[in-house]
Amino acid sequence: MHHEQHLKSSDTIRDIVIGMSDGLTVPFALAAGLSGAVNSSGIVITAGIAEIVAGSIAMGLGGFLAGRTEADHYHSELKREYDEVERVPEQEKAEVKEVFADFGLSPALQDQIADEMAKDKDKWVDFMMRYELGLEKPEANRASQSAITIGISYIVGGIIPLSPYFFVSESQIALYYSCAITMVCLFVFGYFKSKVTGQPVFAGALKVLIIGAIAAAAAFIMAKLINGK
Amino acid sequence: MHHEQHLKSSDTIRDIVIGMSDGLTVPFALAAGLSGAVNSSGIVITAGIAEIVAGSIAMGLGGFLAGRTEADHYHSELKREYDEVERVPEQEKAEVKEVFADFGLSPALQDQIADEMAKDKDKWVDFMMRYELGLEKPEANRASQSAITIGISYIVGGIIPLSPYFFVSESQIALYYSCAITMVCLFVFGYFKSKVTGQPVFAGALKVLIIGAIAAAAAFIMAKLINGK
Repeated sequence: MHHEQHLKSSDTIRDIVIGMSDGLTVPFALAAGLSGAVNSSGIVITAGIAEIVAGSIAMGLGGFLAGRTEADHYHSELKREYDEVERVPEQEKAEVKEVFADFGLSPALQDQIADEMAKDKDKWVDFMMRYELGLEKPEANRASQSAITIGISYIVGGIIPLSPYFFVSESQIALYYSCAITMVCLFVFGYFKSKVTGQPVFAGALKVLIIGAIAAAAAFIMAKLINGK
Repeated sequence: MHHEQHLKSSDTIRDIVIGMSDGLTVPFALAAGLSGAVNSSGIVITAGIAEIVAGSIAMGLGGFLAGRTEADHYHSELKREYDEVERVPEQEKAEVKEVFADFGLSPALQDQIADEMAKDKDKWVDFMMRYELGLEKPEANRASQSAITIGISYIVGGIIPLSPYFFVSESQIALYYSCAITMVCLFVFGYFKSKVTGQPVFAGALKVLIIGAIAAAAAFIMAKLINGK
């Protein structure tokens, strides 16, 4: 089934995109903001690393728990549907018919479908889950895979804008290198992200670049204002 | 349709949860990490505000673009399906039958369904979109609503752990207050989040609290290590 493959790979890609786009953007903008207020790469690095550690844990564990919550939700709805086909089968049949009425099938055909489907309770419940509630059975281990992918992508993304501060002790000079490197990376990242998701590549690359630039500029200006410089 | 309402409100709640759980966690952990390395609330506030500005823009715009990408994807697939029912109707009918074969309906009934459905191209395509590809028509303005909700939730969440640093100039003392306030807020937030999503409330509240504590502790230890203290 090419569709399922499509869905699965786009889940992983979505996780990489979530982790890396925030990783490239937020630590970059934080470092830029701090560089505008203090002139010590040491403080920028300390803050940057603290942010990357915190961000990757929050996003990774956040992704993990979001996946778990999704799985829990699926199983509680599944239990409810099994209960309902036992308790109120006619109502559940009416819901099956309603689904097909929406697609313009004749009442006679709706009845036939509902009756045939009701013969196999597992398939009937599966139908209700997918087509009435729009819930897909969650993949096993999806939650932990998602957590690891998001967390690592965030760290990889976050180290890039921070790297110049390790080599240049004056943060306001390191900032120039950080801007140059990160802008290139944001553009390249946006390019591949768009390619993979089937969007226009240059428009997509520009969008990603602009978010990063806006976030960094806003953080820089805010930090300057707070410090009254 | 109670199900659609259910879906819509859970989208907004999901956005608030995304924004606020990261907002409460990351600025808190960043402030904790910096407090372990420098002893000036001024630097912690500057870094914290820069982070909140950057994070809310990155997450808000990120949410906006994710919504837009989803809408674009929907429309490009829609175009492809319309094209396919024109070009290869028999293949598309076979795909409809396959959907129902999976639910154990008889081949005779599958044929009837496919033939009846093919009479109305709009409904046929709608069926393929939802039940073969699993794509729901995106709500108009969903993307910008999502962006605003996530961004504001992040700011609200982020201001809370930062607030003690405005009143206590020694960051290592402000950190105690920040920990106390944020732990209470994480617990309360986790409680309501679990209530709303139908999870066990105390287990859910503890989970959220523990993520925040782990992120802050990790950031604190990393920042100490970097500064060799």
